[in-house]
Amino acid sequence: MFDLKKYIQKKSQVVNDTLEQVLQNSQQDETINQAMKYSLMAGGKRIRPALCLAASEAVGGNPQDALMAACAMEMVHTYSLIHDDLPAMDDDELRRGKPTCHVAFDEATAILAGDALLTMAFEILASVPLENGDQAAKWLQVIRVIAIAAGSQGMIQGQMLDMAAEGRRLSVNDLESMHLLKTGALIEASLQCGALLADADQAQQGLLKTYARNIGLAFQVADDILNVEGNPALMGKAVGTDRLNQKNTYPSLLGLDASKQFAQKLIHQALQALEAFDNKAEPLRALAAYIIERKR
Amino acid sequence: MFDLKKYIQKKSQVVNDTLEQVLQNSQQDETINQAMKYSLMAGGKRIRPALCLAASEAVGGNPQDALMAACAMEMVHTYSLIHDDLPAMDDDELRRGKPTCHVAFDEATAILAGDALLTMAFEILASVPLENGDQAAKWLQVIRVIAIAAGSQGMIQGQMLDMAAEGRRLSVNDLESMHLLKTGALIEASLQCGALLADADQAQQGLLKTYARNIGLAFQVADDILNVEGNPALMGKAVGTDRLNQKNTYPSLLGLDASKQFAQKLIHQALQALEAFDNKAEPLRALAAYIIERKR
Repeated sequence: MFDLKKYIQKKSQVVNDTLEQVLQNSQQDETINQAMKYSLMAGGKRIRPALCLAASEAVGGNPQDALMAACAMEMVHTYSLIHDDLPAMDDDELRRGKPTCHVAFDEATAILAGDALLTMAFEILASVPLENGDQAAKWLQVIRVIAIAAGSQGMIQGQMLDMAAEGRRLSVNDLESMHLLKTGALIEASLQCGALLADADQAQQGLLKTYARNIGLAFQVADDILNVEGNPALMGKAVGTDRLNQKNTYPSLLGLDASKQFAQKLIHQALQALEAFDNKAEPLRALAAYIIERKR
Repeated sequence: MFDLKKYIQKKSQVVNDTLEQVLQNSQQDETINQAMKYSLMAGGKRIRPALCLAASEAVGGNPQDALMAACAMEMVHTYSLIHDDLPAMDDDELRRGKPTCHVAFDEATAILAGDALLTMAFEILASVPLENGDQAAKWLQVIRVIAIAAGSQGMIQGQMLDMAAEGRRLSVNDLESMHLLKTGALIEASLQCGALLADADQAQQGLLKTYARNIGLAFQVADDILNVEGNPALMGKAVGTDRLNQKNTYPSLLGLDASKQFAQKLIHQALQALEAFDNKAEPLRALAAYIIERKR
């Protein structure tokens, strides 16, 4: 039986050590670095890095080769959280049980800390030691994949759609389109980068894309369900806020039971996409199950 | 006699056409794209792209090869202006004679438009068609140079220092350190990228760095002087605001005449650094003079 808890712990450790090391190359006493570190090391679940490294393993690669891509994904994810939490956006004061960046520091510092994390993600992707020109071309591709996923046609457009949906009732289709961009794009990019750094073939890339889209959406459905019936102490944030803020969620559109069934269906589809893979894809299989079973 | 006006017009035209083209690849009807375009095409002077292309020419390169680096520099510059203008930062309502991005749209859209321009800069740098692995390695180096210049050790740190200086009187040395980061880092990166894409040697890179540091600082001194005695109609923004806001400027620390002399001295030093270059560096020489003669 594959021990996912141990797997995630091990991967998180490597990712956290690397992130700490990257941050330590900067002038640590500066406020901007403190703010970056505050949010980056705030105890995130490191799901995107785990997916990136697990995708590399699934196609027979050495996950060490994808480590900087995994770290960059977490930096981009953290920047997006810092900016989403700002007063002009979702105006959230608590994240992972701690004051959000603009509360702990100030708004200007939070904007700049987000900017700096996004910039640093591209810096570390462009700084991996290269053995040959083929590797250089691969890292450029990784940068391109991440930039497209995080940009105005991906995650940022998702956040725009999310804000535009405030106070309007969305159809299930529109809700899905929004989530595929807002959280799905980065999850898909995490898997794609891990796979391409391990020289996955087109068929493998296609299957991992199907896996990614399904778990990405399932991740969001699970988030919505946790906001209804999760334990705030475990989650480090309040529950029931979606309903209070009349947010468009799967439970509000489908009901709680149908949402749970939908999440199960998505995970089933994700696992189907992995059928062509051997036991090196066990981490990806376990991660799919974890995504809807997690308590935070 | 070298015709700088014509040179800048020609380069701006190419850069503007390319930027328009890049933006048109996106879904143009989306608000986020409108906001990005609004700020990117607001009539900027395109000095950073001109410096990037002129550096490429100065070392005998084909400026066409550096075009995407030139465009990326302008995207990064525009993103920094959008974020600097936000209410939580400098709270400016007018830029280049037009309402700033957060006034024309809203604060959340402006934050995301800045984020998206920064992200798109890296996307276009990673999307240049490649002929071989050496080129791939060169573009990775360009991405690294720009990320470091724009990041928490460069431009962003400069903005942090600028905000920290509010209400405090700085020494001339501290003012210089702040400007070397806030505006100097990106100007230096513009020249460095143009030069490295044209395969400049170490000596040329060193001289262009000296040129860059001097004109970067001169640019800021000139900005400070324009804020004292510029024509608001030509500049598209109010003058006298630095004094009103008790900002640390060269005229406030050195006086107006000494500031003008200082700017002249910096330009002289910049031109000295170019002495080893032949007439292919004429655009760079003319740009140095323009930087302190400009009226906006």
